[in-house]
Amino acid sequence: MTAEKAKLNIIKVGGNVINDAETLSGFLKDFAQLKGAKLLVHGGGKIASTISQSLGITPQMIDGRRVTDAETLRVITMVYGGLINKGIVAQLQALGCNALGLTGADMNIIPAQKRKPEPIDFGFVGDFDPQQINTQQLSTLINQGITPIMSPLTHDQDGSMLNTNADTIASGLAQALSADFEVALVYCFEKSGVLRDADDDHSVIPQITPEVYQDLKDQGVIFAGMIPKLDNAFGALNSGVSKVHITHAEQLLSLGEKGTVLCQV
Amino acid sequence: MTAEKAKLNIIKVGGNVINDAETLSGFLKDFAQLKGAKLLVHGGGKIASTISQSLGITPQMIDGRRVTDAETLRVITMVYGGLINKGIVAQLQALGCNALGLTGADMNIIPAQKRKPEPIDFGFVGDFDPQQINTQQLSTLINQGITPIMSPLTHDQDGSMLNTNADTIASGLAQALSADFEVALVYCFEKSGVLRDADDDHSVIPQITPEVYQDLKDQGVIFAGMIPKLDNAFGALNSGVSKVHITHAEQLLSLGEKGTVLCQV
Repeated sequence: MTAEKAKLNIIKVGGNVINDAETLSGFLKDFAQLKGAKLLVHGGGKIASTISQSLGITPQMIDGRRVTDAETLRVITMVYGGLINKGIVAQLQALGCNALGLTGADMNIIPAQKRKPEPIDFGFVGDFDPQQINTQQLSTLINQGITPIMSPLTHDQDGSMLNTNADTIASGLAQALSADFEVALVYCFEKSGVLRDADDDHSVIPQITPEVYQDLKDQGVIFAGMIPKLDNAFGALNSGVSKVHITHAEQLLSLGEKGTVLCQV
Repeated sequence: MTAEKAKLNIIKVGGNVINDAETLSGFLKDFAQLKGAKLLVHGGGKIASTISQSLGITPQMIDGRRVTDAETLRVITMVYGGLINKGIVAQLQALGCNALGLTGADMNIIPAQKRKPEPIDFGFVGDFDPQQINTQQLSTLINQGITPIMSPLTHDQDGSMLNTNADTIASGLAQALSADFEVALVYCFEKSGVLRDADDDHSVIPQITPEVYQDLKDQGVIFAGMIPKLDNAFGALNSGVSKVHITHAEQLLSLGEKGTVLCQV
């Protein structure tokens, strides 16, 4: 009989929560109260764009997507790794949560590869394989009661930081840390969960299995931007993550009661 | 018989090294090669002022000293805690040094108090007592081969980051970590050491004891800005630090051969 793994909640929170100081502060109060081991992954929000504009950096866009050029990389290293990350850490410390702000470069947690410039050169953007994540120090710290706060930055192991999508980091960490923990991955969202009717916040689908997911896609209930999100979430479940929650940022303390749970069966 | 403590070098590097990318890169190559347990404390440099100006923040000065107002605090949190700190971490990782970028808020390492607004209100500036430093996690990480990279930021335990002098942080950490390590504190400097003749870089005084220090002050050899620096260094020696080096940033790999050593006897 193997020892039961300790539980770990990995929470991903995005720009909609980070952009507003009051919303963020309310969310962090809930997060600090969440019992047990936990890890927060935060997105970037609009602050980087505002600061880029103030610094006179013209955003480069290709096919409607932002390019992380050298100047933009400096701004996001400052804003994601410094302003947002350490602001969250200071607030959580005040709430009695022993937070530690990190990027993927710290302790070489997330070594990544700069995305190839073909067919489109997105600049300093990093992709990684969850199996490359170095979890040893991270697991030790979590077991010692530390709450890691991860910003959406990785590094190329050659001296440069890289911009990496926060959803992907959350999913990668959840997969890698499943070796040491029973991981629940929680995507905080601007809606109450996955909705049967996009216009009705009361139409939350409480549970989605791979079979139900196929049906919902066939019926056209789940479409467009939700498909890559859910594909990603089911990918995490296939790689050892025990549960994925999709819920409103304000429902963090009602996990399992409110929002949508994705599970294998 | 008590077990011998492991050695730990705490290196402080200032703006003159950080302001120039090539100088910093050369310094980090040496730092990565430095054997044994080590910790780096970095100063702020000019980048924060440049970025403040670009963002249209007018520096507030009182008696020639900069005031850290709320806007400036945001900039230094970004620049010290993000841009400079994570830039150093990424470079050191590429050099095989397992760096971890920190502020005093992370893991509540350096809880501080906002300086009283009387007689002069310097804004979000933090003072701390070395005895308040939380070394437990830090010592564990160092013993596991991690190299902490500390930015000149503390926090007020009430949700706000604070601006704190890097020399003071280096000295405070050296004192606190002396409980667990045999600490040598190394101030990297723009000169080769403490000079007998300020204009002659070959006039380095190799060793200064408290007695010699008194003589040098009496003779007027050490004066002005060097006095608080050395008072601070001798204070660290009185609080358990085993050695203080004052040396050129380019002489890091010749500790004990070049530069000045302060010691009790």
